[in-house]
Amino acid sequence: MPTLVVLDLVGIFVFAISGGLVAVRKDLDVFGVLLLAGTTGLGGGFLRDLLIDAAPPAALADWRYLVVPAVAGLLTFGYHPTLGRMERTVNVFDAFGLALFCAAGALKALDHGLGPVPAALLGMTTAIGGGILRDLLAGRVPVVFRGELYATPALAGAFVVVVGVELDLSRELVSVVGATVCLTWRLLALWRGWQAPRPPGMASV
Amino acid sequence: MPTLVVLDLVGIFVFAISGGLVAVRKDLDVFGVLLLAGTTGLGGGFLRDLLIDAAPPAALADWRYLVVPAVAGLLTFGYHPTLGRMERTVNVFDAFGLALFCAAGALKALDHGLGPVPAALLGMTTAIGGGILRDLLAGRVPVVFRGELYATPALAGAFVVVVGVELDLSRELVSVVGATVCLTWRLLALWRGWQAPRPPGMASV
Amino acid sequence: MPTLVVLDLVGIFVFAISGGLVAVRKDLDVFGVLLLAGTTGLGGGFLRDLLIDAAPPAALADWRYLVVPAVAGLLTFGYHPTLGRMERTVNVFDAFGLALFCAAGALKALDHGLGPVPAALLGMTTAIGGGILRDLLAGRVPVVFRGELYATPALAGAFVVVVGVELDLSRELVSVVGATVCLTWRLLALWRGWQAPRPPGMASV
Repeated sequence: MPTLVVLDLVGIFVFAISGGLVAVRKDLDVFGVLLLAGTTGLGGGFLRDLLIDAAPPAALADWRYLVVPAVAGLLTFGYHPTLGRMERTVNVFDAFGLALFCAAGALKALDHGLGPVPAALLGMTTAIGGGILRDLLAGRVPVVFRGELYATPALAGAFVVVVGVELDLSRELVSVVGATVCLTWRLLALWRGWQAPRPPGMASV
Repeated sequence: MPTLVVLDLVGIFVFAISGGLVAVRKDLDVFGVLLLAGTTGLGGGFLRDLLIDAAPPAALADWRYLVVPAVAGLLTFGYHPTLGRMERTVNVFDAFGLALFCAAGALKALDHGLGPVPAALLGMTTAIGGGILRDLLAGRVPVVFRGELYATPALAGAFVVVVGVELDLSRELVSVVGATVCLTWRLLALWRGWQAPRPPGMASV
Repeated sequence: MPTLVVLDLVGIFVFAISGGLVAVRKDLDVFGVLLLAGTTGLGGGFLRDLLIDAAPPAALADWRYLVVPAVAGLLTFGYHPTLGRMERTVNVFDAFGLALFCAAGALKALDHGLGPVPAALLGMTTAIGGGILRDLLAGRVPVVFRGELYATPALAGAFVVVVGVELDLSRELVSVVGATVCLTWRLLALWRGWQAPRPPGMASV
């Protein structure tokens, strides 16, 4: 399978698990778990495909894009207790999805003729879209706004991909490096409790 | 009028009433009622048309698609007290919209060359999209996640339509049967208080 | 620069400031401020471009559309205390964005061959889309539903633009008049506390 499809499918799988875990925490039924898993897994790619006008989105024309989130949702539904402590587990799967989608989104945007800066931003949008949709639907504050470093690692990973492709490096290599940069940064931010700067002068409010 | 347009317009009408009723319950003013009626009525079809790239959406190219939700919104605004007990009434109108849109969405997706499984899923998406948008905007938990059977009847109805069309049955017949399957299932789930299975092992949490 | 681009860029700038101010009020970090500024500034135009199938959206093909919200977000982040009382300031910037986007949205819809009524409605959608997205993401009740006059001034301004273009008046003149109608109406509604009619019979509930 081409790089893009592999990145997409693995990203959909881990994001779908993160969506399924949020649904399980909210005590939703099996259909709620499947829907939230599917929305989280496919949301970022749908958004990307709509914005670059790659319609109909891959997910509607290729059965693998539908089977993967369904399997992830059912696995989460059945085996969630063995996945352990929920919040941390959600965040780790979410970080993997973020890393895979920032690379896949940037690659696909370049393939559709976008310039380097828009392609990097679209990679970030692909990466954060599914999680924002998941949190909106589940009534959580979107993770992207919770004061942890989230969108920036995705932008950095997408930027690495864009620069690598401009330098004519192999797509596989560039995707792995970009996704690794994003994943490492995100996991370090999670584990070290990194914080981005707050607006000046708000402490006194 | 062709089957698709009739299904669409009646679905828009009943969904718009359900949106208008939610707006009235939230004590919104006349513009809020019209906006929420329009968004609920047109949201699912917009989503479908964006995903199958049928742009601009029918609603922007055909005046009937704009007059219908406006009339539904004004009727709801003026006559809501006679519509009786709100929550139940919203749910019944919502069920009719669900039934009509799962058939219309599946038909239109087939017309645009999608395969049977994506077409059935797109029918479900068309059906649940307007209600999710209504509930997000009104700050309610989306009905689809409230542990009642909601998305499954829509998927079943869309599936009936897809199978019927594959068997070369008449579009009118297939639409009526599909919508009836969805409507019956949804109303029974509402009235009997049917529940889908919850994730195992959550009772002890 | 052509009228449309100027309207778009100034509208993006003021909407981005309104989004940045909401983010500052929510005590988000610098990335949250930039993201909410960007989403608010670009959301309405993205929605418009998706609905009229003008893909990829201008914002992804033209660097000015990306620099403007970034600068607005950084300015808001750094200088928000001098912007004074928050709620009122957000509303005034929001009113300017509303006025500029209802004109720009209507013009672009006409350029893409939509009829006068859909073009006016699309102008309104462009104008209210960014603010709805901002409020959804920030967990606020969308301003459009708060019982103040909001969508109607945008519809009126877009309607003026559509009628003017039909009468073959200059695009610059028509945009200024349409935006002024919208802005004046909206600011008067804010300052006078105008209220639209509520549904009859709710006072007793």
